Amino acid sequence: MGKKIVMLPANQVDLTKVKYNPGEIEAPNLSGLWLRVFVMLLEMPLIGSAIVAYLKRQNKIQEMLRETVIPEPPMFRPEFPLQEQEPGVVCLKEDGKSQDRVDSCIRCLPQYDLATTASIAIASRWSSGSTPSFRYWKIRDYAYSYRSRITTPSVVAEHVISAIQEYNKNKKPPMPQLVSFNAENVRKQAAASTQRFEEGKPLSALDGIFMAVKDDIDCYPHPSKGGTTWYDEVRSVDRDAVCVSRLRRCGVIFVGKANMHEFGQGTTGNNPNNGTTRNPHNAERYTGGSSSGPAAIVASGICSAALGTDGGGSVRIPSSLCGVVGLKTTFGRTDIKGALYDGGTLEIIGPIASSVEDVMLVYAAILGASPADKMSLSPSLPCLPDLSSSENSSILGSMRLGKYTEWFNDVFSPDISTKCEDILNLLSQTHGCKVVEVVIPELHQIRTAHLVSIGSEALASITPHCQSGNDKKFTLDTRTNLALFRSFTASDYVAAQRLRRRVMYYHMEIFKTVDVIVTPTTGMTAPVIRPRALKTGETNLRVTGNLMRFILAGNLIGLPAISVPVGYDKQGLPIGLQIIGRPWGEATILRLAAACEALHFETKKPASYFDVLKGR
Amino acid sequence: MGKKIVMLPANQVDLTKVKYNPGEIEAPNLSGLWLRVFVMLLEMPLIGSAIVAYLKRQNKIQEMLRETVIPEPPMFRPEFPLQEQEPGVVCLKEDGKSQDRVDSCIRCLPQYDLATTASIAIASRWSSGSTPSFRYWKIRDYAYSYRSRITTPSVVAEHVISAIQEYNKNKKPPMPQLVSFNAENVRKQAAASTQRFEEGKPLSALDGIFMAVKDDIDCYPHPSKGGTTWYDEVRSVDRDAVCVSRLRRCGVIFVGKANMHEFGQGTTGNNPNNGTTRNPHNAERYTGGSSSGPAAIVASGICSAALGTDGGGSVRIPSSLCGVVGLKTTFGRTDIKGALYDGGTLEIIGPIASSVEDVMLVYAAILGASPADKMSLSPSLPCLPDLSSSENSSILGSMRLGKYTEWFNDVFSPDISTKCEDILNLLSQTHGCKVVEVVIPELHQIRTAHLVSIGSEALASITPHCQSGNDKKFTLDTRTNLALFRSFTASDYVAAQRLRRRVMYYHMEIFKTVDVIVTPTTGMTAPVIRPRALKTGETNLRVTGNLMRFILAGNLIGLPAISVPVGYDKQGLPIGLQIIGRPWGEATILRLAAACEALHFETKKPASYFDVLKGR
Repeated sequence: MGKKIVMLPANQVDLTKVKYNPGEIEAPNLSGLWLRVFVMLLEMPLIGSAIVAYLKRQNKIQEMLRETVIPEPPMFRPEFPLQEQEPGVVCLKEDGKSQDRVDSCIRCLPQYDLATTASIAIASRWSSGSTPSFRYWKIRDYAYSYRSRITTPSVVAEHVISAIQEYNKNKKPPMPQLVSFNAENVRKQAAASTQRFEEGKPLSALDGIFMAVKDDIDCYPHPSKGGTTWYDEVRSVDRDAVCVSRLRRCGVIFVGKANMHEFGQGTTGNNPNNGTTRNPHNAERYTGGSSSGPAAIVASGICSAALGTDGGGSVRIPSSLCGVVGLKTTFGRTDIKGALYDGGTLEIIGPIASSVEDVMLVYAAILGASPADKMSLSPSLPCLPDLSSSENSSILGSMRLGKYTEWFNDVFSPDISTKCEDILNLLSQTHGCKVVEVVIPELHQIRTAHLVSIGSEALASITPHCQSGNDKKFTLDTRTNLALFRSFTASDYVAAQRLRRRVMYYHMEIFKTVDVIVTPTTGMTAPVIRPRALKTGETNLRVTGNLMRFILAGNLIGLPAISVPVGYDKQGLPIGLQIIGRPWGEATILRLAAACEALHFETKKPASYFDVLKGR
Repeated sequence: MGKKIVMLPANQVDLTKVKYNPGEIEAPNLSGLWLRVFVMLLEMPLIGSAIVAYLKRQNKIQEMLRETVIPEPPMFRPEFPLQEQEPGVVCLKEDGKSQDRVDSCIRCLPQYDLATTASIAIASRWSSGSTPSFRYWKIRDYAYSYRSRITTPSVVAEHVISAIQEYNKNKKPPMPQLVSFNAENVRKQAAASTQRFEEGKPLSALDGIFMAVKDDIDCYPHPSKGGTTWYDEVRSVDRDAVCVSRLRRCGVIFVGKANMHEFGQGTTGNNPNNGTTRNPHNAERYTGGSSSGPAAIVASGICSAALGTDGGGSVRIPSSLCGVVGLKTTFGRTDIKGALYDGGTLEIIGPIASSVEDVMLVYAAILGASPADKMSLSPSLPCLPDLSSSENSSILGSMRLGKYTEWFNDVFSPDISTKCEDILNLLSQTHGCKVVEVVIPELHQIRTAHLVSIGSEALASITPHCQSGNDKKFTLDTRTNLALFRSFTASDYVAAQRLRRRVMYYHMEIFKTVDVIVTPTTGMTAPVIRPRALKTGETNLRVTGNLMRFILAGNLIGLPAISVPVGYDKQGLPIGLQIIGRPWGEATILRLAAACEALHFETKKPASYFDVLKGR
């Protein structure tokens, strides 16, 4: 107390003297009765404040926000310097039709090759009446099958419906992937799509493609509960979110709303309200979160893709833990209107799919900034990498991959850094990519600035609805978070934004010497679900710290980032590599992700609940 | 409690049903011992929180920020829609030399006419050795006199120095205009300027012009105390603020740092630390604030111009109360780097001068967005009205002036609305301007959003310096404010930003039908100084409410606004008209202000401390 720290301006910090120091999170690890008692204490007037103040001091939050002179003016949302256009890309029209963008995307993909895809088995599988062993069909496999009349959306719908129903009904404890589902509604969408194919007029390559939508994104007529039991009572849904409606115009079939960590307030996917979604690779493990349902339903092969939201890794973390691909778009690249937190400065809507090309197709359909963001962020043109071009490999060869080795290796299981390292070596050997050592200072500050920003913005959305005691309807986990968030002052919020400008400065300096930054997506593979955490939830900030270690700059300063599977740990759990791009640099990270995927393809095994469950 | 209000989206609000309701501010009116006791209670842990909570509830602050669902996403700083270029303007180069911009400005002014200016008396006044009765010489009068060798900056400097010294020394209680002043430093600057004129190489029309700088803007070698007794101990000054250095390159002579309401936390100009600056029109009256010293030193004719900051009317209010012209520039138009609060979303640096043309000259010199704002705000080109063009009157004739009559008439003294109304009638009769009735809803929300934003941003700057008890060194007035500001949560801050987006929407709709909005600058003329408030300060939120009634949209959504004198009330105190422009619309409001000034010229009497004091 009483001591004041004065930070040097970011442009005077000597990076050669930076020591790796991510800061450990100090907090109790609680579930069951202990969690209940803890929350009771936290919510008591004086004791609660004292506990929160103690924890904040332990974690140097007070020190960073109230006892430090931060010379930079605040940056309240990402302010991006002008970016050069990436090489070898095809630019899309934000204001054009989503169907046209999907068409352009198809032309960016390598030629569709029957021989090397799952499509060899198409005829025998979809035409039979038996429950199929779902595998990773790509969107183009479906599109081909529909156009060639090998199957129809209505036929596939029955398989999808029975898989969802069998799964949602028969499990104890419940572990739903979907939390709002209506078979008749799915059949109706499928019938309309089937008819379009019969008439030879499919809307796009996405026509008849099955997708799920995270429970915090509006998809009419489903309610948006955000993983709670009650939020639909205070916020009704009367139309699709902008991203959903763009997909609907392409003919996508929405199966329903996918489970999530309540209000996105956690990264495991634990949800006592709906039941906790299980990891398709191992039902004893979490999916990661908060987009738990979206990642699981894609990883289990039931849907081709899903929409998630990512304000603190919520697309990338579950994608990594479930062995699928998840894209966190540049802040403002997609229009977040119609999501529960549509007023934040960190969160975006992004696609999850089993392959990079499917992520590209969904991304092409949904992209386009909101009118306000177009004005205030001046986004660069949205582009896709032209993977069909013969130049692709030479462009890959020019890529400089930034790696902060101490950080890269700071993982709970060494398998993670090994597998991520392996793929970097393969990229170098095969394409000539260059790995460049970089240093990212103030990692602890990134975490603090992110926590204060996302917590305060979420709280502002929830607060007016909490007047009549609704806050007691949240899970204990969320209530713990809310107690923390309520302790942040407006001045803390502003101080956090000063840190945000520093973080932006450091990253823009790094991007002068590299094209992307590579990290493991998560510091651990899928964590074990403790049985007693199923009913009461849990708070385990060490797990949170491991899951979020590499995630936060993408959100705090709005950079695009992708998680792509690169292998498995010794327990057979998926490992993801994260590629972080320059502002608006989706094309570059998609190109690199596609290259990683191709290199990893040999060892990649598809996962499905059915396989996993059969094996138990 | 327990009730939740749901606002309609701003674009669905029926403006024809809006009732005028600015909301009264409910708060105690305290000075002397009572203020001391109140602050003691406010700073006690539980009682203090209870008092603040009570006051916030009385003023519906809790209701607006915590019990209301605001559908708009937050707007953390002004986001301006693209603006069309104004007619009949000359555009300036932001990145060019400030001297060149001053040259361009000179060409925009009506021809310099010896016969109609104070310059008739030049020879007789400046060449004599007696203390002159300072009058409103314009910058061009000085420039002419210097170039014609009628006088020199060094000669004028002696008059300026003796006026400042006589005034600062001899008054009891002290009522300084300047709080940091060094005669030798002024003489040195004047000698350099005199030499440039002798060599026939003046830097610009501003060479040899005497200016003061508000105590919260860095002007080397003076300390920046922001009206406190101690802030220079925690923040040292080693260079000029950007705006100051742009003026210095034009040859401006800086006389020193001008007094202000402590930390800008008030609008009267009361300052127990330095003594309270007196209104040149009546020494028993406040100057208004927070730029009290800058307005007074200009109004008393000692300096041609001064720089102030305006985060909540701090340039416009004292300009209005002192009968001079004050320009609040568009947010981001001037670079605020080097001001104490250089990280806010509301405050700008703007010029105060005795005439519109002098404001234009200083504005031309200082304008130019910071590199970060250039990126994130994409300012329109800075322009000046071409007042020398024959088209000027016909452009004036095309102007539509928006007036919200109920608001316009909500003033403490009816003289104010009458005089403002008179000038509008003159504008219509002389030039054909059209007055159009407009409605601005949610005025109470504007005030709340502004209070939370400016308070939180100021607090964030101060907090790290308050660790060792420095906050007890603030005046009681400031401590009252800080107690309030500390009660704002991060979630309140975000909710206030949601209100900001609504306010922007309403104003942009209004600007589809009018070119400017006109109001009185203040709801009262210069308030009486209560003797017991001189030592302890005072808190009088009713006065604050009257002074700030028309001010806040300019800050909350960053619009340019100017205060121009239009007459006097029955006590002979000046009345100002405020003209609020579209984003980046400085040229339009300057053109209209010049027209008002010309129409008011007949009745305009200069003021000086010397006249006032002689008269007592």
